[in-house]
Amino acid sequence: MTETVITSEKQKVVLGFDRRFVMIGERINPTGRKLLAEEMARGDYTRVVADALAQVEAGAQMLDVNAGIPLADEPKILADCIKLVQDTVPVPLSIDSSIVEALEAGLAAYKGKPLLNSVTGEEERLERVLPLVKKYNCAVVAISNDETGISEDPNVRFEVAKKIVHRAADFGIPHEDIVVDPLVMPVGALNDAGRQLMHLLRRLQGELKVNTTCGASNFSFGLPNRRGLNSAFLPMMIGAGMTSAIMNPLHLEDIQAILGADVVMGHDPNCMSWIRKFREPQAEGEASGGRRDRGERRRARG
Amino acid sequence: MTETVITSEKQKVVLGFDRRFVMIGERINPTGRKLLAEEMARGDYTRVVADALAQVEAGAQMLDVNAGIPLADEPKILADCIKLVQDTVPVPLSIDSSIVEALEAGLAAYKGKPLLNSVTGEEERLERVLPLVKKYNCAVVAISNDETGISEDPNVRFEVAKKIVHRAADFGIPHEDIVVDPLVMPVGALNDAGRQLMHLLRRLQGELKVNTTCGASNFSFGLPNRRGLNSAFLPMMIGAGMTSAIMNPLHLEDIQAILGADVVMGHDPNCMSWIRKFREPQAEGEASGGRRDRGERRRARG
Repeated sequence: MTETVITSEKQKVVLGFDRRFVMIGERINPTGRKLLAEEMARGDYTRVVADALAQVEAGAQMLDVNAGIPLADEPKILADCIKLVQDTVPVPLSIDSSIVEALEAGLAAYKGKPLLNSVTGEEERLERVLPLVKKYNCAVVAISNDETGISEDPNVRFEVAKKIVHRAADFGIPHEDIVVDPLVMPVGALNDAGRQLMHLLRRLQGELKVNTTCGASNFSFGLPNRRGLNSAFLPMMIGAGMTSAIMNPLHLEDIQAILGADVVMGHDPNCMSWIRKFREPQAEGEASGGRRDRGERRRARG
Repeated sequence: MTETVITSEKQKVVLGFDRRFVMIGERINPTGRKLLAEEMARGDYTRVVADALAQVEAGAQMLDVNAGIPLADEPKILADCIKLVQDTVPVPLSIDSSIVEALEAGLAAYKGKPLLNSVTGEEERLERVLPLVKKYNCAVVAISNDETGISEDPNVRFEVAKKIVHRAADFGIPHEDIVVDPLVMPVGALNDAGRQLMHLLRRLQGELKVNTTCGASNFSFGLPNRRGLNSAFLPMMIGAGMTSAIMNPLHLEDIQAILGADVVMGHDPNCMSWIRKFREPQAEGEASGGRRDRGERRRARG
C-alpha cells in the first residue's frame, strides 16, 4: 500500500490506490493567461487569491502554484504566492516551476510537506532537484521524459520513471514520495494514446508501486467537445490506477466524472460525497424522488 | 480474439475486445411503460416503430425487443414486433423474453442471426434455451445467476458464467456465441459493486474470453444524478473489458460517455466518429475553433 502524504499546517492529503482521487487545482499559473502574468509581474496577487478560493470551494483538495513569467523574478514571485495562498486557503500545495531556484524559494517559504513539481529523467535536473526533495523532505512529481525528449513508446516512459525512482532511492527518498506523471499524449495525434496510458498506469501501480498524476486536458487537444471527452478519459484512467490529476476544478463535468469514478472504485463510502453534491434541493418544493435525476429534471423544465 | 457476430438481413454487428462498443437500444420493452404495454396488447405498434426509428437514429447499433405483458399472448406479440422492427430498421436485434415459447416464436420470425436474451445458469432454463440457440445458430446472453439467485460474490457469478459456457459447449455452441451479463448491482446498496464488476469483467475477458453486456442503469439505482454517475460508470466498465450494453441510447450523456470511451480505447480511428458527432456546426456562422468545445459554447450563450 503506497501512500503519498502531502500536508499544509492545517490539512493532510493522502494519495493512494485505495483512496479518493485527488484533484490538484491548476489555475494559479500565468502560462497562457496574459492578464494574470502582467498582474503577478507587478506584484498584484488579487487574482491569485480569487483563484485559490474558487478552486478550493469547487472541491480541489490541493492547489498547484506556478509563477512562470518571462523576465520576471520568478523565485521571489513564487515564494510570495506560496505564502499568500497558504494564508488564504488551508489545503496543501504543489510548488511548480521549471527553474530550480524558484522551486527552492518556494520550498523555503512553504509551511508543511508540499509536492514539488517537478523532476524529470534528465541528468542535470535529477542532480539538482532530488537533493532539494531530500533536504525539505517533500514529495515530488516525476515526469517521465529525459534528455531524448518524450518517447511515444510507453515502455520507454516506464523505464524513465523507474530510473527516477531508483535515483531518488540513492538520495534516500522513498518511492512513496514520488508521484509519477506518465505524460498524456493527444489522442488526436496518437490514436493509441489512451490505451497506452492505461497500460502504463497499470505497470506504474503494479510494478513500481507509485502514485500518479497527470495534466489530463492534453488528451483531448485539438478535438471538439473536449470537456465531454475528458469526462470519459478521467474515469478510465482512474479505473486503470491514476490517483491524482492537475486539472481545472471549476468544470462541473470534470468534477462529476471524478466523484463518479470515486463511487465506482468504492472510494466513496455509502456514496455520501456523491449524494451531498447532487441530491435534490428540497427547498424548491418538489417531491423528493431519489430516483429522479437532474437530467430528467432539466428536461422536464426545458 | 473473440468475435460475436450478430446479423440482420442487411447489417452485421461484431462484439469484440478490439471493436467499438455496441449499444443495444432497450426502449422496446413494455416493462414499466404502461401505455406501451396497453398499446402492444391490443396490437397497436405505432410506438414500437417510433422507438425503433428514434433509437437507431440516436446511434444504437442493435435493438432489444421485449413483449413481456402480463396475460397477453407474448409469443405472438413478440413475433409480430420482431417482424415489424426488422421491416422498419436495418439493425440486428436482440430477442428478449423470460418465456421460452416467446423466444422460439421470435427466433422463427427473425431474419438473420439474432442475439437471444437470455439464458441463465438455472438447470431448467439451460436445458430449454440452449437447444434453441443451437437449432437457430444464434448468439445468446448468459446471465450469471442460477437457482440460488444472484450472488453478491463476483467469483460465484464468474463460476455461473463458466458453467453456462461449458454447458453450451456440450450443445456444440462456441464461446464466441455466449455474451455474458455479469449482473450490475446497485452501488447505493453494495459499495464495492463497481470494483467487483471491473474485476469480474477482467476475468471474463482474460479467462473465459467471452464478450459481455449489461443493463448499465441498475448501477445508479436510488442515487441522485443517475445520468452523471452512469457516464463515469460506462467508460470504466469499457476500460475493464465490457463490450456492449443494453441501454437507452436517447441520452446524449451516455452516448458521449461511450463514444469517448471508444476514443480512449483506440477503437475510433482518427477520432472520426467523435469528430463527426461533436464538431462545431459551420452553418451557424461562428468561427470554427477545433479546440473550442460545446460546453464553452453553451455557457457563452447562456
